[in-house]
Amino acid sequence: MNNKVLLTDLYELTMLQAYAEHKLSATAVFEFFVRKLPQQRHFLLAAGLEQVVTYLEELSFTAADLEWLAGEGHLGQDFVDSLADFRFTGDVDAMREGTAFFADEPILRITAPIAEAQLVESRVVNILHLQSLIASKAARCVLAAPDRMLVDFGMRRAHGAEAALAAARASYLAGFSGTATVRAGQLYGIPLYGTMAHSFVQAHDSEVAAFRAFAESHPQNCVLLIDTYDTLQGAGKVVSIAQELARRGIQIKAVRLDSGDLAALSRDVRQLFDENGLSDIGIFASGSIDEYRLAELARQQAPIDGYGIGTHLDVSADAPYLDCVYKLQEYDGIARRKRSTGKATWPGRKQVFREYAPDGIMERDELALVDCVCPGEPLLQPVMRNGRRVVEIPGIEQVRAHAAAELKLLPASLKGLEEVQPYSVSVHDALQHLAAEVDRRTAQHA
Amino acid sequence: MNNKVLLTDLYELTMLQAYAEHKLSATAVFEFFVRKLPQQRHFLLAAGLEQVVTYLEELSFTAADLEWLAGEGHLGQDFVDSLADFRFTGDVDAMREGTAFFADEPILRITAPIAEAQLVESRVVNILHLQSLIASKAARCVLAAPDRMLVDFGMRRAHGAEAALAAARASYLAGFSGTATVRAGQLYGIPLYGTMAHSFVQAHDSEVAAFRAFAESHPQNCVLLIDTYDTLQGAGKVVSIAQELARRGIQIKAVRLDSGDLAALSRDVRQLFDENGLSDIGIFASGSIDEYRLAELARQQAPIDGYGIGTHLDVSADAPYLDCVYKLQEYDGIARRKRSTGKATWPGRKQVFREYAPDGIMERDELALVDCVCPGEPLLQPVMRNGRRVVEIPGIEQVRAHAAAELKLLPASLKGLEEVQPYSVSVHDALQHLAAEVDRRTAQHA
Repeated sequence: MNNKVLLTDLYELTMLQAYAEHKLSATAVFEFFVRKLPQQRHFLLAAGLEQVVTYLEELSFTAADLEWLAGEGHLGQDFVDSLADFRFTGDVDAMREGTAFFADEPILRITAPIAEAQLVESRVVNILHLQSLIASKAARCVLAAPDRMLVDFGMRRAHGAEAALAAARASYLAGFSGTATVRAGQLYGIPLYGTMAHSFVQAHDSEVAAFRAFAESHPQNCVLLIDTYDTLQGAGKVVSIAQELARRGIQIKAVRLDSGDLAALSRDVRQLFDENGLSDIGIFASGSIDEYRLAELARQQAPIDGYGIGTHLDVSADAPYLDCVYKLQEYDGIARRKRSTGKATWPGRKQVFREYAPDGIMERDELALVDCVCPGEPLLQPVMRNGRRVVEIPGIEQVRAHAAAELKLLPASLKGLEEVQPYSVSVHDALQHLAAEVDRRTAQHA
Repeated sequence: MNNKVLLTDLYELTMLQAYAEHKLSATAVFEFFVRKLPQQRHFLLAAGLEQVVTYLEELSFTAADLEWLAGEGHLGQDFVDSLADFRFTGDVDAMREGTAFFADEPILRITAPIAEAQLVESRVVNILHLQSLIASKAARCVLAAPDRMLVDFGMRRAHGAEAALAAARASYLAGFSGTATVRAGQLYGIPLYGTMAHSFVQAHDSEVAAFRAFAESHPQNCVLLIDTYDTLQGAGKVVSIAQELARRGIQIKAVRLDSGDLAALSRDVRQLFDENGLSDIGIFASGSIDEYRLAELARQQAPIDGYGIGTHLDVSADAPYLDCVYKLQEYDGIARRKRSTGKATWPGRKQVFREYAPDGIMERDELALVDCVCPGEPLLQPVMRNGRRVVEIPGIEQVRAHAAAELKLLPASLKGLEEVQPYSVSVHDALQHLAAEVDRRTAQHA
């Protein structure tokens, strides 16, 4: 992770200078939430909290940062000097990573002196947006192919290095089996998977020579790519060498299909392998896979054991961003809201209360103020107090288990890909009254 | 930039082990190109070369990398040990950053021992894809609003930190005026712009108090956000304080509109300011802006002087990825190609020759082999030889000037947003013959 403090928008710094010069230093409460779900998303999965906490803990300006800022021209020297001691000393409350959430529900609240809570806006949104975006896309893939192995193959077309690493992490926590991105394995302990590329086959004089060479070098982890020239001929070559390799202790684990009609080809390849006593060889597929293709291949009963999912996962291609924001909800003890056309927000410190049906399935959420005595489970819990973590942030395996549990508790209608009635999120009366009161007060001051 | 060598796909490393164990160490030629342009793109702009060169120069495994790899389980100890001396010693030829390019045209060629050329695949694609994607999107915005100031506002919804920095760089080279991302200013020397957020207004007891405070702190760079409660009332408050501030030497530079009907509001605000002798105050707009909105606002003659463009730019929302690849075209002196269904490639070392009409406008490109004596300008030029740069990589300002020149030379039809006849790229006869020959040879070895 890149935790440079200058990963922020210029206006955060110019606002900080104005706050400082006009003595606005009281406590501010900001909340991160998604205003509206993309049309193709029935729920979202919260992700990125661990990286946000690390970012907040490490936040400080280096001497080089300050020198550069002072020379850059937008800020005054006195203000820049005052940043030398800047640290995050505030509180964070958040939903656990892997928790399902919906529109208007805060997944993270920061309560801190306004300068601290303001400066971190850009990067906090940047982190939570990306990981929640990808975790939510990955969850749809997992639900569309619940009994298949899914692997993140998207590094090359992810939007940069950090996006590739975030995609590996977010898809794993949402239920993927692992990733091809080696650095993600090193950083996060995510299982690594890989096959071979067309270039490997092409570099050899024949496909058989390429298969044999790879198998000899990776007798325990041999997945052969068979579509470089012709998929069925490639499968035939696998048959022609499999027994000889097996005698030498080399077990071909699987083949990979990367083009053509995957349903038809996988059936033909499966049949060929089965007829030749090679039922142990699995079939892995890749190439423009997403949740819609997974559902279609499931419907066609394609005998494919696992999928490599790249571009569509790593850029969340059908919905490449979330309409998410980080908004001031309270300052100096007074609730606030903006009323901009089409972008009004709910004021005050909020909590999300979730109620479950007798069978354990999620039934409805209520968006309420933190002091509400409401039925249901309060989803935001303390994470940091006075700039330090007050709970152990769950590791990736715990988050993954929690996400799996969450997906089980989703109403059935939300698990599919068809358009559905949105999940019920109601706004508590007290919150509606507060919003009206804030509006009256703002109007008086206008 | 994150130049960790383990930013790669696992299969690159498992293939490298097989190459090493089977003595495949001859020279390989890989080319990066886009197979097919997104439907909404009539041309692309090449970007990211500078970062690729730096990556290749810095490529090496640390002792910690090797120790981790040896323990990870997919690779043999001897092979891992052999990586200690790994360096990139090959050649790079590429189109200049900022050059317009089209489907099937290589913008970068790497010629190196196969292990080196193979290992870098994942990250080279990752870098060139993202920057070319964003530069191309940004160029469309520039063409849709040629006489307006455009600023990248997208950091928060870019896919991670690196994506935000790449978007700032790529949009600037394509003709944007600057970015709000402070770290991009520090890293790349890109001009920084910023206004204020709704939270700043909300934190004050009244909008006027907020405007006054910000203006006092930033007398030279005062852009006031006026839509927090009601845009026209906000504009009225600007009028109410502008003269008093002016007497104190504080010039309000502009106001920002961030919601509502931007065409209608900008007209009303412009009229109000003009009627009150405030013609110097500019109007800046933001909020879901992209090239389509820019074109529409231009058509409506909205009196908006500049735009902040965020999400739609930074994730290239209407086309969030390019169908780009990095393919083996030659190994050990012999041309290669894959023939996978729908994904066949042109073999051999290629060059793109561009011809111009008498008026200087781009007329047609020819995709040919490097040794072709073809009319037109050869677009790929030497960049690295034996692992070292042999030319000075142009700085960002030079790249920006080149991109501006390229946009001027585009055929008029490609500059618009409507569907058009694609630009003419022909495939040279000799290349077609080579492809047929490669196919015959591959078939013989099948």
